[in-house]
Amino acid sequence: MSLPASRIYLDWNATAPLRDAARSAMLAAMDVAGNPSSVHAEGRAARGVIERARAQVAAAVGCQRDEVVFTSGATEAAMVLAQRPPGAAVCVDDLAHDALWAHFDLTGADDPQARGHTLAMGVACGETGLLRPVPERVDGRWPFGAVRCDRLLLDATQAVGRVPFAFSWSGAELAVLSAHKLGGPKGVGALILRDGLDIGALALGGGQELGRRSGTENVIGIAGFGAAAEAALRDQEAGAWRRVEKLRNLLEKTLQDAAGDIIFVGRDQPRLPNTSCFAVPGWKGETQVMQLDLAGYAISAGSACSSGKVKESRVLRALGHDGVTAASAIRVSLGPVTTQDEIIGFAEAWTAHYRRWKARAA
Amino acid sequence: MSLPASRIYLDWNATAPLRDAARSAMLAAMDVAGNPSSVHAEGRAARGVIERARAQVAAAVGCQRDEVVFTSGATEAAMVLAQRPPGAAVCVDDLAHDALWAHFDLTGADDPQARGHTLAMGVACGETGLLRPVPERVDGRWPFGAVRCDRLLLDATQAVGRVPFAFSWSGAELAVLSAHKLGGPKGVGALILRDGLDIGALALGGGQELGRRSGTENVIGIAGFGAAAEAALRDQEAGAWRRVEKLRNLLEKTLQDAAGDIIFVGRDQPRLPNTSCFAVPGWKGETQVMQLDLAGYAISAGSACSSGKVKESRVLRALGHDGVTAASAIRVSLGPVTTQDEIIGFAEAWTAHYRRWKARAA
Repeated sequence: MSLPASRIYLDWNATAPLRDAARSAMLAAMDVAGNPSSVHAEGRAARGVIERARAQVAAAVGCQRDEVVFTSGATEAAMVLAQRPPGAAVCVDDLAHDALWAHFDLTGADDPQARGHTLAMGVACGETGLLRPVPERVDGRWPFGAVRCDRLLLDATQAVGRVPFAFSWSGAELAVLSAHKLGGPKGVGALILRDGLDIGALALGGGQELGRRSGTENVIGIAGFGAAAEAALRDQEAGAWRRVEKLRNLLEKTLQDAAGDIIFVGRDQPRLPNTSCFAVPGWKGETQVMQLDLAGYAISAGSACSSGKVKESRVLRALGHDGVTAASAIRVSLGPVTTQDEIIGFAEAWTAHYRRWKARAA
Repeated sequence: MSLPASRIYLDWNATAPLRDAARSAMLAAMDVAGNPSSVHAEGRAARGVIERARAQVAAAVGCQRDEVVFTSGATEAAMVLAQRPPGAAVCVDDLAHDALWAHFDLTGADDPQARGHTLAMGVACGETGLLRPVPERVDGRWPFGAVRCDRLLLDATQAVGRVPFAFSWSGAELAVLSAHKLGGPKGVGALILRDGLDIGALALGGGQELGRRSGTENVIGIAGFGAAAEAALRDQEAGAWRRVEKLRNLLEKTLQDAAGDIIFVGRDQPRLPNTSCFAVPGWKGETQVMQLDLAGYAISAGSACSSGKVKESRVLRALGHDGVTAASAIRVSLGPVTTQDEIIGFAEAWTAHYRRWKARAA
């Protein structure tokens, strides 16, 4: 997890630096020359790399091995939402990621009891850290307002490796997951499909991943995903995030003492241990991100999805904040290697800019 | 390009070992911590890795940089074929890869002049090495039998880095490409979209790749793809495959001298310099692959797409060979590091097995 010495990285919800275990696994996989679909020794070696990673990911997600379908990330995995009977609705939770929102479609929801509706939601909101309780089934179906859904898709991307999560216990039919949020490489992820669930293929062609996702597998990336998942699970079970949570709380107390008009989002609600989302209404989030970037700190405003997109946060608006507050929010997200000195340094830099902004705004 | 010393890898059309240049670029990219969609310094560094690779891939493919859309491989890129007006046909060349055949659909071809038909074909056939001439436009459209197609999609996967190819000069609207066939990592590829062509997104979500393919980019894999493409182009322009072609021809002459009943596929036609496809009718291809695997040689029967698939070659049947011959074919595909000793060794091992088979068959 090497970062430039002069930079402090506090944007772990956008992406986590590559874990050492992932790096080692990827280096080893680089020497495996075969195509995993080839039957010769080189091919079988590549197949072995993938199946080992599948077991590691299944353990971290709390599912069976053959419920794991490797994809190029959570976004590709969420494309499973495009598979639905004509007229079936896709209901999406307010705090879900754009990759789920892209499939939001209430067509058919005028018959809330019709078959085939899907509810899609995140286990944890990347932007605020808020944990979303998985709903209870009503008459065997997932309720979303008046609509009754037959399938529940959980975006476990921000949760796995940070808070306890087990797909098997959630009752959900589907989950999506990304490697890079837990210290694996970017561009790798998984679709978790409950055993026996019948879906069409995400990609057509050679029939890889038991026909559920064709295309030669990203062997090196998958090796890194597996190793990162194993390390993340171990860290989480060892309590690595308790120290992080204390630092996050220290940060929030320090900022609160410095800025009386600061608003914390979800501070009194269950949330990820590493995330702080806050706003000083009127001081634009994107301005803060640029100022703190120049000061050596990487943070974000909203979720990092497509560069240059500057808009007020949909999530904060959904939480009831006004437009000015939503456009003023920033997110600071810590990782297991974040230090107290880094947090104090950030708080000082932020406070200095805050005072300048107050002086100008006065 | 390290391979186990006791193994000889002759299955380069299934996948090529990782090039040293790709490995170095991937190692460097592992230290780039940011999300390419983040606006801070770490994010901009990751964006820079991707844009450098885009220029390298564009140079190797002979297209403009902004015509390159990074995907998880050629199979995902070929999913663009699923985007077509209702009733429009997808015509597929006989020798094309399964990833194109998966979209074969002559619905609508009963009106051969209707708008929206697509012709999909490979520039080179992976299984036989045969080069396929790009058709000439007729009245501005691509002919496929009586059908007139508005779009031509070229699978350039086996061609780029091995034979001269330039997307811009081909006239095609679309091309698909894979990194691992030219010495990059598996699970990375590109869709090439002619400038101005309007298509829907391959994946919906955060809006990456100018909205054409959402999902956090595979930064490490893309870095390897770019470096491999650059190295492959340099090798090809330096004539690296001329030596390979001589070795392939030596192999074929040696096998012909040893086995009077051997049938070479496409030996007198334009084909890739590294590929030999041949059959001894009645001696099953999969048997040969297993026997030679035990002898230390990695080769294949048919294309390596989904492990365990044992069926006669569709491509060989399309070329007019009978079922027995098609089920008896194997493919030997060489790389730039293949040596004459390896070829002689393979020919000896194959010949020994051939004689045993002849003795038993007699």
